[in-house]
Amino acid sequence: VARFPDAEIIAVGSELLTPARLDTNSLYLTEKLNALGLEVVRKSVVGDHRERLAGAIRGAMASAEVVIVTGGLGPTEDDVTRDAAAQALGRTQSFRQEIADWLANRFAKMGRNMAEINLRQANVIDGAEILPNPNGTAPGQWVEQDGRVVMLLPGPPRELRPMFETECLPRLRERCPKQIIQTLFYRIAGMGESDLDALIAPVYTRYTNPATTVLAAAGDIQVHLRARCEAAEEAGALLAEVGPAIEALLGDRIYSRNGDSLEVVVGKLLRDRRETLAAAESCTGGMLGERITTVPGSSEYFAGSLVTYTPRMKVEVLRVDPRLIAEHTAESEPVALAMAEGARQRAGSTYALSITGIAGPGGGREDVPPGTVFIGLAGPSGTEVKRFRFPGDRERVRGFAVQTALDLLRRSITRATSPMAWMQPR
Amino acid sequence: VARFPDAEIIAVGSELLTPARLDTNSLYLTEKLNALGLEVVRKSVVGDHRERLAGAIRGAMASAEVVIVTGGLGPTEDDVTRDAAAQALGRTQSFRQEIADWLANRFAKMGRNMAEINLRQANVIDGAEILPNPNGTAPGQWVEQDGRVVMLLPGPPRELRPMFETECLPRLRERCPKQIIQTLFYRIAGMGESDLDALIAPVYTRYTNPATTVLAAAGDIQVHLRARCEAAEEAGALLAEVGPAIEALLGDRIYSRNGDSLEVVVGKLLRDRRETLAAAESCTGGMLGERITTVPGSSEYFAGSLVTYTPRMKVEVLRVDPRLIAEHTAESEPVALAMAEGARQRAGSTYALSITGIAGPGGGREDVPPGTVFIGLAGPSGTEVKRFRFPGDRERVRGFAVQTALDLLRRSITRATSPMAWMQPR
Repeated sequence: VARFPDAEIIAVGSELLTPARLDTNSLYLTEKLNALGLEVVRKSVVGDHRERLAGAIRGAMASAEVVIVTGGLGPTEDDVTRDAAAQALGRTQSFRQEIADWLANRFAKMGRNMAEINLRQANVIDGAEILPNPNGTAPGQWVEQDGRVVMLLPGPPRELRPMFETECLPRLRERCPKQIIQTLFYRIAGMGESDLDALIAPVYTRYTNPATTVLAAAGDIQVHLRARCEAAEEAGALLAEVGPAIEALLGDRIYSRNGDSLEVVVGKLLRDRRETLAAAESCTGGMLGERITTVPGSSEYFAGSLVTYTPRMKVEVLRVDPRLIAEHTAESEPVALAMAEGARQRAGSTYALSITGIAGPGGGREDVPPGTVFIGLAGPSGTEVKRFRFPGDRERVRGFAVQTALDLLRRSITRATSPMAWMQPR
Repeated sequence: VARFPDAEIIAVGSELLTPARLDTNSLYLTEKLNALGLEVVRKSVVGDHRERLAGAIRGAMASAEVVIVTGGLGPTEDDVTRDAAAQALGRTQSFRQEIADWLANRFAKMGRNMAEINLRQANVIDGAEILPNPNGTAPGQWVEQDGRVVMLLPGPPRELRPMFETECLPRLRERCPKQIIQTLFYRIAGMGESDLDALIAPVYTRYTNPATTVLAAAGDIQVHLRARCEAAEEAGALLAEVGPAIEALLGDRIYSRNGDSLEVVVGKLLRDRRETLAAAESCTGGMLGERITTVPGSSEYFAGSLVTYTPRMKVEVLRVDPRLIAEHTAESEPVALAMAEGARQRAGSTYALSITGIAGPGGGREDVPPGTVFIGLAGPSGTEVKRFRFPGDRERVRGFAVQTALDLLRRSITRATSPMAWMQPR
């Protein structure tokens, strides 16, 4: 079997060596490299220190064929990656007028003056290919030497990711032996990581190929299957054996097979049916609206969210009966129900979701401890409210609430024959 | 000035090189080392590979006086840390009967048989001190050589942390000069990273002590100054020299000197004045409300946010005159103004912020390209609207808009003598 090159990743930045920060670009890069068949044999974080970084790059070139350096390409004195890489490679740099012109043009378009120091970003290591950066001011660089490749990439993920996918992946693919990797990817809502693992581990642990990975965030789990073979039919057959077995166990808790987020899935369901959604939020403070509107074009199906953080606003904007609040408190099933109906009426939408509860850390009552959240859904066939108790701190509780609300709507729409079937306990 | 030893951390484990896992022990260790005055100059993750790990340990010893290796001390074939460290140090290992006895005793107490392979954990590098592990089976090791120290510590945090605090911290303290670290920390809104750096670099680059670090996110910049001296007065004097010079340049763009986020700063201003805030959002979809309500207790001053994503909702909920929208479009100064006033009236609040604009990527018009955002502020002394053009993709534009809106409110409140002074061009 042909050998794949080994890879080493170096993240640059003194701030990444502080107790509060982690380099996460390496996770993204590892996933992409693994998908090509490359193994990451070491990853490091080095501060903004030219000599140390040059030493780290030299060390990496001694043990790996692919060296990726992220960050430190900005315009300031602290940005030492260009100089350190040139030093490690024993090469000089040249000022490239075409980059300077492009930078000046970019600043002009935004109506800003370019500072003199930005011209540093026009310095390129001799012999390097320039990797264009449509999303920032720092161009990347690709240098080959002695059968090795050293890539210099910008640190911000929104710049690094498109550059890596457009510029680096195609070049790396040419350096790899021809193998076939096929993947299956599920996103799952409505269960915890350990429950999910207990459910599907008896299936996936029987196989090393495909390899299975389970990733979890609040209320959102991803399951990846990855088959690596010399022929496409072989990889397809492996996935056709394991995938359906896992799907059968997870059922409609799988909300996506193509990587789409829950807000994208819900948006497509609404758009396809020409239906609309509104929201009424209390403890989530706007997070539900924010999630839904991360999707470009969401105004086609999303009317808005009425964030009523005080009782007065619930009465004034959502027309909740003040006696309901007085009798049951604002964090209660009757108020969640009235909020959903009020939002649906105000917006004239097909559906309305409501969220009210106690995100914590304080504010709990004996019968309603922190983490308790009521989620309502008003729709053409009536209104229902469900009570939840979510674990974790304030942000985690809020994240669970939003994810769960979106999932309730998804299930309600997709179980068309029995819209409120999700209300029944399983 | 006496020099502090530099530290390097190496985490061992192939599982830490997968796309789903991060080494977090290094964050804990960095915090403890920084508190002693030691700086972490590099941290790495290396797989379960003896030769590579030995190389990494040798490299670390060449550039740092304190080398901490975590993980890989278990009993299996994969656990290569003992052998790799012995190789890097050029020393042999000896079987230590007292560890074997202690292990056998530990297993017996738990009513389990000790597997033969556990005896590997009784191998100790010649000349090393044994670091007892009351919480697991892997003893740590402390080895000194050529003025350097190499520590081998177990990977599980519940084993590593007590061992580090009981065994390593006291030994490290003896190796450190008695010194004092004092810091200043500014958070700044309302300018870009390169503009800020151009402004303050002429000051901070004149000093290596205090050391200055500049970190940036969308519309939010942090500047750290860190002075390291033998006496508190000396550190204080250094900061008293550099800090005010930087403060004078940044002026009221500094919103926090204690690390508080902008939403916390704005919340305190409102609470102190017993004033309240409401919001009307369009393109940010709820992100402003979500940011404000990340602060526990924000219901004391935040009424809510009316996320009106469609023209109908702006008319229905905020009572924006539909003729304004027809004439100027929903992304315009007059509509931003009407949104702010509508939200203030609905909520009965002291202030109301409004945000409407085009987050992109699509939806722009010739005179209103993507990234254009109108931000309104209604208050006791009137209503003002400002137009902005933010760079970047949809999420970045939205992030800039929210940060800028909060900062406009902060400036309006703090410039009490001239509440709308921020409206004048600088």
